[in-house]
Amino acid sequence: MRTVYVNGDYLPETEATVSIFDRGFLMADGVYEVTSVLRGKLIDFDGHAKRLERSLSELDMKSPLDRDALLEIHRELVRANEIDEGLVYLQITRGSDGDRDFVFPDPATTDPTVVLFTQSKPGLAQSPSANTGLKIVSIDDLRWGRRDIKTVQLLYPSMGKMMAKAEGADDAWMVEDGQVTEGTSNNAYIVKDGRIITRGLSHEILHGITRAAVLRFAREAQMEVEERPFTIAEAQAADEAFVTSASAFVTPVVEIDGVRLGDGTPGPVAGRLREIYLDESLKAAI
Amino acid sequence: MRTVYVNGDYLPETEATVSIFDRGFLMADGVYEVTSVLRGKLIDFDGHAKRLERSLSELDMKSPLDRDALLEIHRELVRANEIDEGLVYLQITRGSDGDRDFVFPDPATTDPTVVLFTQSKPGLAQSPSANTGLKIVSIDDLRWGRRDIKTVQLLYPSMGKMMAKAEGADDAWMVEDGQVTEGTSNNAYIVKDGRIITRGLSHEILHGITRAAVLRFAREAQMEVEERPFTIAEAQAADEAFVTSASAFVTPVVEIDGVRLGDGTPGPVAGRLREIYLDESLKAAI
Repeated sequence: MRTVYVNGDYLPETEATVSIFDRGFLMADGVYEVTSVLRGKLIDFDGHAKRLERSLSELDMKSPLDRDALLEIHRELVRANEIDEGLVYLQITRGSDGDRDFVFPDPATTDPTVVLFTQSKPGLAQSPSANTGLKIVSIDDLRWGRRDIKTVQLLYPSMGKMMAKAEGADDAWMVEDGQVTEGTSNNAYIVKDGRIITRGLSHEILHGITRAAVLRFAREAQMEVEERPFTIAEAQAADEAFVTSASAFVTPVVEIDGVRLGDGTPGPVAGRLREIYLDESLKAAI
Repeated sequence: MRTVYVNGDYLPETEATVSIFDRGFLMADGVYEVTSVLRGKLIDFDGHAKRLERSLSELDMKSPLDRDALLEIHRELVRANEIDEGLVYLQITRGSDGDRDFVFPDPATTDPTVVLFTQSKPGLAQSPSANTGLKIVSIDDLRWGRRDIKTVQLLYPSMGKMMAKAEGADDAWMVEDGQVTEGTSNNAYIVKDGRIITRGLSHEILHGITRAAVLRFAREAQMEVEERPFTIAEAQAADEAFVTSASAFVTPVVEIDGVRLGDGTPGPVAGRLREIYLDESLKAAI
């Protein structure tokens, strides 16, 4: 039985509820973050805390807890649930004033809802997909226009995972105006002639915390990085491809829409970046 | 204290909760309907029940309750809460299997979550805005690509209401590729030379239950109806404009982006359609 956090209380997971009037439930009016845990420590916590601040600010919400208070809750849940490898999920919604209205409730009288819980994922750092690579299918990107805000509007990404599954693939890359935006829960990259290519930051994609770290490590390792959109056809002709996310770290892609990349096995650039990312992140974990 | 319905139970509203793992809360994986109540009776109930079926089906969800069971809950809540004029809100989510995953839970072992509650709105049929008309501002339509499915992904429409409010307006019309899609919670119409113009049905707009009824009544009354997109400039040059929704019925629009329509007062076509809609709907109410 997990211990979870809801609005100041540490509770057994089966007793953890929110009001049916919570705007997270009625209107998807909330944001979230997922922070990985390795060897019982938080990976890139400050990156996630900063992005959370930005998401809240873009939605005119105030953070109910500062960085240190959030860190303390993360650590307490990791301790209480004995998480060695896994995740901490955090969600903040605009709360509830006890009824339903499109108009935001008065923040002076309505507190945000804060929910955190852990997921234990033994073997997270040695995930089999790091060795086998992912099979990807492409789907239209039908999401809203502000994907840089990490909201809980995850219905379409969730449908995308199901579409991938139905085709025997592991995940989907989304395509808009002919160009790949990103994966359903990760940023997308290709590698051609040693150069790492990934879409630049805009409202169209999530500003991945892992993306920022991986690109920094890549540049520090003298790898060439080009931030620009690419097509599925270009990806299929690439030497290799991979995704990054807080929980997948760097995970190779070996097939896109039925076309194998290179020799169909994970590429060396993805492998090296995964190794660097895990090494450096573990050193900096708190 | 309202009585609300949650998964088979009639509860005081303050005790009505859902799990923090509910996919409605975590992933906006849910659909809803709002049915108006006039003189204690349900307006267009069967239209809403049918659209609910369609929304669920588009998301590969099964309806946990048939039309008659839903009707019984609607009526019991109207009775228990003594609703003369108001709304019944219904939401169905994919429920919770006790954890978070993008992949849908197995429907054989995970029940949907069903929530219903009422909102008392005395004077709903005689709303002041029916006499004064609405001031509208235009905003970009940033919503996802399947607006025909009535999901709880209402963050952007909610932000749109706030943008309208900030400009001293009542509501916003959303614009995509230069054409009006619809209002934040209603379908949009203009009237020019006696002809009613409104965008045709597609994935881009909600298939309004009130829209369908109003267009039927308009055609029966020998009014000309043209289903095609229109621009904000065309709307500003129109003789009149209006919106329809389950709770606004037919409500006139008198100003768009600071430009008054006609003489700046509600137009005769909107007035007549509102009268016909209320008359006919009341006759058919159950």
